[in-house]
Amino acid sequence: MNHFADRLIDAVRRKKTPLCVGLDPRWDSLPESIRRRHGDSLQGKAYAYEEFCIRALDIVAPLVAVVKPQSAFFEACGPAGTSALLQVMRRARRYGLVTVLDAKRNDIASTAEAYAEAAFHVFDADALTVNPYLGRDSIEPFLKVGRALGRGLFVLVRTSNRGGGQFQELSCNNQPLYQQVSAAVKQWSHEQLGTHGYGDVGAVVGATHSQELAAIRQQLPGVLFLVPGFGAQGAMAEDTANAFDVSGLGAIVNSSRAILFPSDATGMDWEAAVENAARSAIRELATKTAAGKLAGT
Amino acid sequence: MNHFADRLIDAVRRKKTPLCVGLDPRWDSLPESIRRRHGDSLQGKAYAYEEFCIRALDIVAPLVAVVKPQSAFFEACGPAGTSALLQVMRRARRYGLVTVLDAKRNDIASTAEAYAEAAFHVFDADALTVNPYLGRDSIEPFLKVGRALGRGLFVLVRTSNRGGGQFQELSCNNQPLYQQVSAAVKQWSHEQLGTHGYGDVGAVVGATHSQELAAIRQQLPGVLFLVPGFGAQGAMAEDTANAFDVSGLGAIVNSSRAILFPSDATGMDWEAAVENAARSAIRELATKTAAGKLAGT
Repeated sequence: MNHFADRLIDAVRRKKTPLCVGLDPRWDSLPESIRRRHGDSLQGKAYAYEEFCIRALDIVAPLVAVVKPQSAFFEACGPAGTSALLQVMRRARRYGLVTVLDAKRNDIASTAEAYAEAAFHVFDADALTVNPYLGRDSIEPFLKVGRALGRGLFVLVRTSNRGGGQFQELSCNNQPLYQQVSAAVKQWSHEQLGTHGYGDVGAVVGATHSQELAAIRQQLPGVLFLVPGFGAQGAMAEDTANAFDVSGLGAIVNSSRAILFPSDATGMDWEAAVENAARSAIRELATKTAAGKLAGT
Repeated sequence: MNHFADRLIDAVRRKKTPLCVGLDPRWDSLPESIRRRHGDSLQGKAYAYEEFCIRALDIVAPLVAVVKPQSAFFEACGPAGTSALLQVMRRARRYGLVTVLDAKRNDIASTAEAYAEAAFHVFDADALTVNPYLGRDSIEPFLKVGRALGRGLFVLVRTSNRGGGQFQELSCNNQPLYQQVSAAVKQWSHEQLGTHGYGDVGAVVGATHSQELAAIRQQLPGVLFLVPGFGAQGAMAEDTANAFDVSGLGAIVNSSRAILFPSDATGMDWEAAVENAARSAIRELATKTAAGKLAGT
């Protein structure tokens, strides 16, 4: 079975871009036509999210290697939302996309294993985001289930929100907490390196802290980065530059709202606007970061 | 609308016990008759979890005030599991039980709001467990949605697992990280105190660290504690004693496996064994902690 990092890197090389499209179906931002067709009952919202995300996948699948569905929006629709998420994950897989299920799960022992089963067996995700606060033995059950299937994890290290520093920047034994977490991520990741030299445990590091991104990249060779914050959260393509290795690999850069709901879409139908926004984000990353080298290989 | 902490404390006083029954339906531990009836497909497991938890609720509802369904096990059954969890939550509510949905959610902004909507609108939980790693602005959306409905949060502070100290015990500005988190919990909690003097943001503090429990109790007057670790995880009733205030209030003590799947159930049918285990846990807490005073009032 293929190592997660190898699959991801091969897919990024094929598509020649590190852009990851976040599938965050916010009700208020959906195209009016889709909202009207399904209505705003929980079931209706779930159908609307499914239709919207699947049509968005149809557009971005030829352009990018990775998508990141956000579990929260689907969960807010109850059981119908869970079914919708399942359909979206299946469609992404049918397109051969690498899927990162963004669910930030965390628990211990058999409970953590149950979350891992949900992510890797039920939703068949290639990778899952997890929260490290509970420590090593809360990550191990995810690794146990995931590694048996060649799947990966992205551990929250330094998040992109304004208040993310409240705990993550606290000085712990003369290092900010996030560096203590990233040291642990390095250990977990290096337990199982793929043929491209990257491990199956990655780090979530926000693009809104560009200097820290550079420091963490330095600290974590061989660790894949999932970089949120690009686009609607305010980071520019150049702010993500420090996430890449010299070959333009080692990181995927997520954008959700700026691609699904672009603000400069006047006169376009929504699908043209999504394609336009995705192409523009890909171009930005290619010109402002080492990811530009991917296009040359 | 009633304040969460007032509702919880009134319910605990009525039932005269701080015991919280954790609904963790582990497939391998379920009664053979229930497993056979439904089979081990995802759908079958979901039906089995629903039947088991609802029959367990029928037994414990007259005895305790609070139950804590564990989302992970239901999620591992896919959409059918989400429906099962919904039915279990409904039954608990119909019994007038206070429900703590254990899902350890965490995210930022509208994504965190979506999780809060799932917990408080869809599943109609009285409280939700959340993970603090992302900081203040990751807690606020949960508070915004929850407070409008009189619901509460339990923030992970010091967890009961062996490796919980890896980050939680790191010395940050001369205090262990968990004390930095508990200081934040105190602030959030004291923003909105109920008439019994407790806030609507509680703390998860494991019973497996009895001395720390005492220190955190000292640090957090007016903050409700959710104490896991009692029973199968190895803590005794007396280890939870430090969680209570002088009136025997201020804490709920969770036990899951030791009640649902008691080991000393020879010769009893499983329902008699569950009732027996619940009564014995209630007795233990009453004799070994200040919660005994509840029976006298």
